[in-house]
Parts: sequence; structure tokens; C-alpha cells
Amino acid sequence: MSKPVRSPGGFPVVGIIGGGQLARMCAGPAAELGLTLSVLAEAADASAALVIPSAPVGQHTDLEAVLALAEHCDVVTFDHEHVPADILAALVATGVPVHPRPEALVFAQDKIAMRERLTALDVPCPAWAVARTPAEVEAFGAEVGWPIIAKTPRGGYDGKGVLVAGSAGDLTQWLAHEGTAETGLLLEERVPFVRELAALVARSPSGQAAAWPIVETVQTDGICTEVLAPAPALTGGEAAAATHIALRIAGALDVTGVLAVELFELADGRVVVNELAMRPHNSGHWSMDGAVTGQFEQHLRAVLDLPLGDPSPHERWTVMANVLGGEDEELYSSYRHVMARDPGAKVHLYGKGVRPGRKIGHVNVSGDDLASLRERAGHAAAYIQGKVRE
Amino acid sequence: MSKPVRSPGGFPVVGIIGGGQLARMCAGPAAELGLTLSVLAEAADASAALVIPSAPVGQHTDLEAVLALAEHCDVVTFDHEHVPADILAALVATGVPVHPRPEALVFAQDKIAMRERLTALDVPCPAWAVARTPAEVEAFGAEVGWPIIAKTPRGGYDGKGVLVAGSAGDLTQWLAHEGTAETGLLLEERVPFVRELAALVARSPSGQAAAWPIVETVQTDGICTEVLAPAPALTGGEAAAATHIALRIAGALDVTGVLAVELFELADGRVVVNELAMRPHNSGHWSMDGAVTGQFEQHLRAVLDLPLGDPSPHERWTVMANVLGGEDEELYSSYRHVMARDPGAKVHLYGKGVRPGRKIGHVNVSGDDLASLRERAGHAAAYIQGKVRE
Repeated sequence: MSKPVRSPGGFPVVGIIGGGQLARMCAGPAAELGLTLSVLAEAADASAALVIPSAPVGQHTDLEAVLALAEHCDVVTFDHEHVPADILAALVATGVPVHPRPEALVFAQDKIAMRERLTALDVPCPAWAVARTPAEVEAFGAEVGWPIIAKTPRGGYDGKGVLVAGSAGDLTQWLAHEGTAETGLLLEERVPFVRELAALVARSPSGQAAAWPIVETVQTDGICTEVLAPAPALTGGEAAAATHIALRIAGALDVTGVLAVELFELADGRVVVNELAMRPHNSGHWSMDGAVTGQFEQHLRAVLDLPLGDPSPHERWTVMANVLGGEDEELYSSYRHVMARDPGAKVHLYGKGVRPGRKIGHVNVSGDDLASLRERAGHAAAYIQGKVRE
Repeated sequence: MSKPVRSPGGFPVVGIIGGGQLARMCAGPAAELGLTLSVLAEAADASAALVIPSAPVGQHTDLEAVLALAEHCDVVTFDHEHVPADILAALVATGVPVHPRPEALVFAQDKIAMRERLTALDVPCPAWAVARTPAEVEAFGAEVGWPIIAKTPRGGYDGKGVLVAGSAGDLTQWLAHEGTAETGLLLEERVPFVRELAALVARSPSGQAAAWPIVETVQTDGICTEVLAPAPALTGGEAAAATHIALRIAGALDVTGVLAVELFELADGRVVVNELAMRPHNSGHWSMDGAVTGQFEQHLRAVLDLPLGDPSPHERWTVMANVLGGEDEELYSSYRHVMARDPGAKVHLYGKGVRPGRKIGHVNVSGDDLASLRERAGHAAAYIQGKVRE
């Protein structure tokens, strides 16, 4: 069935463009809240299509498919930020509310637009510039010091579209790339950060906002592998400053839904903004088990302009570890082992086929002893991945 | 789509006979765990069919429909206890594991069989007898004192099939009923209980068992309206004794999946068994938000013979209030109001049409102050129901 069946009682249908794990993880909260989802899924066996009855197959770049989805929905939101501007414009023109709105979403789609806007707002960012030529790269490197960070303005994720450049020569290919010739490359100073943090907030069309605690994110090879909630050893003032930045961005950019602000923490405790995402985010997966209101429930409430739920954690610490694909395609027996070893581990799997390095699930554990939680979450994730066998 | 699409990685499909809210509330945990569900639903708009992609429409009394469901499943379990014995036998004959097994399930289906078995096990029960004639009723009433409780052995729920009889004359119609003539009526003494409790446990085919804390259940007109978890003012010894009864029943009857034991607490702190249910149960809805492992996740783990999850509560108290259908068919605006009034309320709605007195949802709230939690949960439920408007 592709057309959604509405629940009686006046409950709305939320359309989601994209059938990845972020759409999938909305399924539980939607079922609990009595809401109906309809997902435009890349394939019949996409992660979200496996668990959501209304999952028409179509691409986010296919205008007809996007408009057909919207026809049965009371609001449309996104699993990812890749819907092109012309499709977004046509979607908005149907009159169905779209959250986040294209005017906000562009700042999560286009890293140059994001840097321009945040700089105009006086939000702390790394030093940055746009370069189209080797000479411009050389000038920026000479100014901020080598190596520098180069980013393609659009389409990057999980470390893709990001390069550490030791000289302009490292960027020859990227500069010559057709798309880049038009937009330019985003160059950023390599921030001497001591760790990475993330600020996750939700904001509704009415302007209500709610913030989860600031978390620490641990990356391996450019992919988030572990999240500590809340971030350890952060002072109240530092946490408030980071939260303030996220709420200020959400308000100034008129973001609707969940907004994730990835931050670099400097040695002096100040933070600068690394990236923005306008959707539920890997840094918020801990909230599914560790907070009164998880990010997927909150995103649904926000895009429907329902009052937001309490984002408070209900344990002192929650640690999330991502499960990445390993060598072994069979997961069920290692998953069984993890459940036996750790009855308190909350195992989440996305129904995705295994490819090395692909995010296929995560594990949350909550409690009082952070070191033990990190060991437990890390072990469970590594075991399912096939990296440890004891 | 009615045939389930299996997740890659070796993950099983769990079939559920019956598409009510208990099947529906398995959807979130199944999606999180990477499991696939297939539900035999009474109608295309049954509660569970609204949120589970594989939901063939058919009746639990239709052999062909039941066997067709089992064909695509690795295990079959139940939303209710009403599947007839001959269908269960044919289901078992297919070789697909069925949990709970018919040999255990009969004690939740047939209250006379239950009383016989529990009495043989020396599990505390009310005084009881089977009566086919007014004379037998008179004799029992004279022995235990009037009024007595009469129950139809099969098919009762939520106070249906239960009558308080002040004399044999009150049971004339029931005794004359065709079914009863064969089986007899179950008569029980009216236990002078001080309150009702419930013991909820899960047990896997391997024999692993896990018990949630003993809860207090509050009934109104024979329907559970409120659950306090854990039961207040219960001593450690009393709680252990009640838990022991449930674990003993689960083991002795070889129950697989979740078992709920409804209990009467007497003035001296002892308990006697009122009813058994072999499935997730209203008395366990609090665990969806209040325990590390909720009853729907645990039921899935149990019937798949996966290691069981930690049933510990993660807050001091959780209160559940049932939302019953009121006069108003429109629910969405009152639900919005409840969310605004209480950001910490976890609202669960089942996608069911409103009929007065029908269970259409529940609200969980967790925290430290029991009196305040009872007020919050009760107000939220009453507001959605339309019973209060301030």
C-alpha cells in the first residue's frame, strides 16, 4: 500500500522525503503518538520502507514523485538535505507545509551560504574563504597556516567532500571539478580543537524551542562513532553558551524541526561552529533511550507545530556507539550474543545491508558510571560489527 | 503489501495473530531491533495494520488465513487469547514455533482449567467451584458467603463475562446459556481484597525469565484505568512473594512470552491470583517509558528465544492512565492541549475509533512524586477523553 491510511480522530499524516534510517526511526514514535507516516523511499527495501506501511518508491529528485507524496500529507519533512531547490520550490507551491522551509534548509545544504550567514550573525566560525583558483587557496593557506580544510559546498556527509590540504596542489582536482568552478570551494582554517561537541535543539513553526543537553561526539575517520550525553567536564557556562548558539541559529534562520549544530571546542572552552544539519542527527540518537522525549518524537512534534516534549535526560549518562558494517553480512548471531552479555544495552538496527563502514545501527546504554557505559556501548557495537569476538 | 519483507542480516519475522493495540505497540520495538512483523489483522484499518507494513486481513478463526500467515514467519505469537484450539493445533502442526504454546495458552483461555491447575500447584486462589445447576450455585454461595463472583470460563475481558451474583437466581440466564451447559460456570468467592496488584514476567523457550516490579492496578467498572509502578507501600517480602508466584506459574505452565498475573491483595499482605494473561498486558504499559526494557520489546525477545532485556525501572515511579473513548470523536485538539500542559507526559494512542469506554490510548508519566504523577497522568487521560475541560 502506498497511500497512507489516516487514523481516526483528526490525526495528521507526516510525509518524509527519503527512506533512510532517520525516517525509519520516526516509525516508533509515530505509532505511539497515533500519527501516520508516508515515506518517499529510494527502494522498496529501503530502511524506512521496511517498517512504514505507506512507502511509495521514488527519488527525491523526481518532481512527480515528490508532489504525489505531498498530495496525501499534512506536512512534509526530510530524511536528508539533498532535495534540489527547484523541487523544494514546487513542493512549497502546493501549499502543503514543508519543514524545515527551503529558506532555512539552504543553510544546511550549502556550506558557503551557511558560513556567510553565521558570520553575518556573529556566530563563532573558523576562519573561512571561498576559492576558485590555486592562487586563492595559496593566499588563504598563507593567512591561516597550513594545512587547511577544503569542503565541497554541497552534498558532503560523514567525511565525504572534506579534504585536509597541505598545499594548493592537493586541491588541483577539486578546483578543476565542474561544480566547483561555479560555486567555488569552501576553505576553512584547521581549528585546533580539543574535542567535538554537538548542540541539538528542536524548534516549531510557532517559535517554541527545546534543547537537549550538549553532547560530546567522537569521530573516527570522519564518521561519528561515539556520543557521550551530556558532554563530560563541560561547565554550566560553557554548556549554556553552546546551547545559546544553537537556539540563536534556530531562531535567526527560522529553522523548524530538529537542528543539530556540530561544534569544535577550543582549549579555552569556547566553541566554533563546524556544520549544521536540519533533521534528526546521529549526535541525538542517545535521546531515543536516554531522554524523556527522543529526537524523532520531537521532530514529528515540531514539524506538526505540536507543543514540544521535555528533552531532559532520565539517567545521569547515556553513551551511544554507532554500529558500522564490517566484513560479516550475518548480524543476528552477534546481536544475540550482545543481548546475552548486556541485558541493559539498547540495540538499534536499521534493516540495512552490511557494507564496510556503513552506519547500520547503534547501541545506547544509560547509567551512572561513564567509563563502564563507554566500555559497554563500545563493546556491543564492535561485537555486532565483528571487530571483537570475545 | 501483505507478505513481509525480511531485513538483511539473518533477522527473523514474527507473526502476530490479531491486529489490536498490543500488536501495534510491538511495532516500535521491532523497528528498533531490526525485526520484521507480520500481523493477521481483523480489518485493513485495525490498530496494528495502520503501522505495520505486512498486515494481511483475516480472522483468527479462519484456518486458511492463520496458516497463510505462518508460512512467512519464523515464530507466531498473539495479540489476544481467542484463537480456537483446533486452529492452534493446525498451526503447531506446520512446524513453525508458536509462543505461548497451546498447552500453556489454554490456562489463559479457560478459567476453569486455570483454577484447576493453579490449585494443583498450591498457588493461592480464591475459593472456587464449577456449577451447572442452581443447586450447585446455592451450595457454593452457602459455603463461601454471598455475593459470589460468576465467570464464563472463556472469552471474557475487561469485566465482560463476570457477574456479581447475590443469589442463584441472578445466574439463571447464564446457566441456561448453551456454552455454559457444557463447561459449567466458574464460581469464585468474592475476595475481600484491599487492592489489586499485577505481576508481569517474561519467559523464553530456553527458560530464562525476567520480572518487572509488582504494580498496583486501579479498576473502574471492571476496566483497568490506572497503574502505579511499582506498587506503593509493598514490603520487599510481599513483592518477592508476588513475583515468586508469577515466576512459578510461568515455569510450571511452561509459559513463553509475557505473562501477566492479576492479583488480589488481602488485608494481611498475602495475595491470591485473580486472572492470567499470556501476552503483553495493560498492567505493563508503564514499562514502555518507565523501564529499561518495555513489555513489547521483551515479548518479542522472549518468543524469539533471544536473551531477555533488563526490566529495571529507570525512574522511581511511573504512573499509567488509560485513555477511554468519550463522547467526542475528534481527539487531536485535546491531545495538543495535553502536550502543551505537560511536556513530560508520554501520550500513546492506538489509532482506534472512539467508542464510549473503549481503550483508545494511555499516558505514562515518570518521576519522584507519586501524588503529582497520578494527578498528571489522570488529568491527561481525562482531558483526551473529554471528561475535563480545564
